[in-house]
Amino acid sequence: MHFLDLGKPDGRRITLYGNEPVTSVGPARAPAAGSSGGTPHLRWHPLRDEWVAYAPHRQDRTFLPPARYNPLRPSDNASMPTELPEGRYDVAVFDNLFPALSPAAQDAPELHVPSLPARGRCEVVVFTPDSEATLAGLPLAHIALLLEVLGDRTARLAREKPVRYVMPFENRGIEMGVTLPHPHGQIYAYPFVPPVPRRMLKRETAHFRRHGRNLLVELMQREAESGRRVIWSGDRALAFVPAWARYPFEVWLGPRQPCASFCALEREVRDELALALKTVLRKYDRLFDRPMPYVLAWYQAPVRGRAYPECQLHAEILPAYRTSDKLKYLAGTEVAAGMFANDMLPEEAAARLAAVVA
Amino acid sequence: MHFLDLGKPDGRRITLYGNEPVTSVGPARAPAAGSSGGTPHLRWHPLRDEWVAYAPHRQDRTFLPPARYNPLRPSDNASMPTELPEGRYDVAVFDNLFPALSPAAQDAPELHVPSLPARGRCEVVVFTPDSEATLAGLPLAHIALLLEVLGDRTARLAREKPVRYVMPFENRGIEMGVTLPHPHGQIYAYPFVPPVPRRMLKRETAHFRRHGRNLLVELMQREAESGRRVIWSGDRALAFVPAWARYPFEVWLGPRQPCASFCALEREVRDELALALKTVLRKYDRLFDRPMPYVLAWYQAPVRGRAYPECQLHAEILPAYRTSDKLKYLAGTEVAAGMFANDMLPEEAAARLAAVVA
Repeated sequence: MHFLDLGKPDGRRITLYGNEPVTSVGPARAPAAGSSGGTPHLRWHPLRDEWVAYAPHRQDRTFLPPARYNPLRPSDNASMPTELPEGRYDVAVFDNLFPALSPAAQDAPELHVPSLPARGRCEVVVFTPDSEATLAGLPLAHIALLLEVLGDRTARLAREKPVRYVMPFENRGIEMGVTLPHPHGQIYAYPFVPPVPRRMLKRETAHFRRHGRNLLVELMQREAESGRRVIWSGDRALAFVPAWARYPFEVWLGPRQPCASFCALEREVRDELALALKTVLRKYDRLFDRPMPYVLAWYQAPVRGRAYPECQLHAEILPAYRTSDKLKYLAGTEVAAGMFANDMLPEEAAARLAAVVA
Repeated sequence: MHFLDLGKPDGRRITLYGNEPVTSVGPARAPAAGSSGGTPHLRWHPLRDEWVAYAPHRQDRTFLPPARYNPLRPSDNASMPTELPEGRYDVAVFDNLFPALSPAAQDAPELHVPSLPARGRCEVVVFTPDSEATLAGLPLAHIALLLEVLGDRTARLAREKPVRYVMPFENRGIEMGVTLPHPHGQIYAYPFVPPVPRRMLKRETAHFRRHGRNLLVELMQREAESGRRVIWSGDRALAFVPAWARYPFEVWLGPRQPCASFCALEREVRDELALALKTVLRKYDRLFDRPMPYVLAWYQAPVRGRAYPECQLHAEILPAYRTSDKLKYLAGTEVAAGMFANDMLPEEAAARLAAVVA
């Protein structure tokens, strides 16, 4: 992996990555002049027992791009600069212009609940300079590079003082609120272990203490043995619809042997994980013969503190559609009570995904 | 409150409620003949530590209603019967035709994670026989009756063996996946305390044990004292944007004195709560001059077991829009990590809602 670190005129950072040596033609630019205004803060939700982030400057964006302007493609000396320089590279990562978490955060209002500056970092990951590409359509070596990049970002972010948890994710499709079709994801570096990974960690730790084994590796072993919900299987990686899927066509994928984070991911495993990911995403797009919108999130061990042998790096992919024209809505029972109701059996979802040629 | 219990030909129950004596013209009917097929089951999510409900018969519905058919209006002897009889009543409650939780549930597959029949009950609450009405537009006495009905349902459902928690909610608007515009809500009677109320109960119980006081009543007292986020205030009820709001324009409302559930709600408090609710919903619809889609959920104490003096009956309303034309999407950080990022300060949301004449 090759990389090139650059600074932007507004102080943000950008790194270009490539499987071949990386070059940048001209400086890194920024779409808008000046800073983005106020800094984000956190408030404690006293009944849910979790932090909520407030980034009021995001709503007040004065940045009004022209129609069809794409800030994620390389600049071409047009009047409106983009986030990426021209040059030779495969993947780019830069600081989000409107972050919900920021190392610059320093203000928090006084309230009758605890509040804090929202330290941390939000990064944008541009999967490729090619606006017409899709993640599933990228060459395997390019997807493997992307996973390697996520390891590099995790290692870098882990060195920043307030960061306790690094989550890379991709929101895909306008159904998920994505306004830019250019293939990209995000990384949130949280100053705490967020509620969902915190709950998972609690189960993983309890299981490891009791049985001395990694919970998810065990569950994957059972899924592999049963085979009923397996979508893709290799010696080192597995993709499956979990028996406990909350979304129709939900898929999990990860290494089959213990691997706590992207930082611990070995090349052979990474290559197979890239193939598993590519296969699942191609199946999604062919399932209903349209690009499948989804949230894809990577879970890994918290950073620093201690080793987390009980944690298992894995992706959870939550697709938006339950049939070719019906969205899976999150409403009363899911949003307010937290009990998911799934109309599709995991076994049926798995059979249908397995049957799609990809 | 007057009521009339009826049975449907397919075995489901329906109750008609009114402020005046209730009459039904002709029998209660059912839109589809025969039963709805398989029964729902629960599977244990080993990493999130929660149950997931599977209702595969919901996706396979053979019931294909004609266009513009409204099963929630009173039957008029047309060829396709609806769920409601003709007659004189204000509110109707009946068993959901495709329940995610059912007293008839008896099958659960054998899996490598725990599974159970999904006992419990799902009810539909028709707010009024008038298809053109809205909850906000109903007379105060009608809204107060609706709250009384929720108390009656809570008491009835609490007597059913497996039920541990009763949550009434309304999903409003096609943005929330609602296919029927006829004003209605739902009640889920869970065989366990679901994840969100469970987390809240934990905080409430800890606070009560330490301080001997009801946590939410205290927080509401602070909100009332500050006044900055108050939307509507009376002697007995309060509506406010909580300092910890996760959604733009999120509003909570409830009694100001301790009241654990709908069953403990006194008439004077109920009447004021109805006024608070009506006021907030009218403000929502006028905020952007369009019907505001939302999820409105009522939290209350678990049923049976013991008294829950630490619990406070209250509604949380989660609107779908953050500006007049921008939806609040739940994506990576909210869905996968569980950290909500809110672009709007609660103080600003409260000021804007307070300024709307309703």
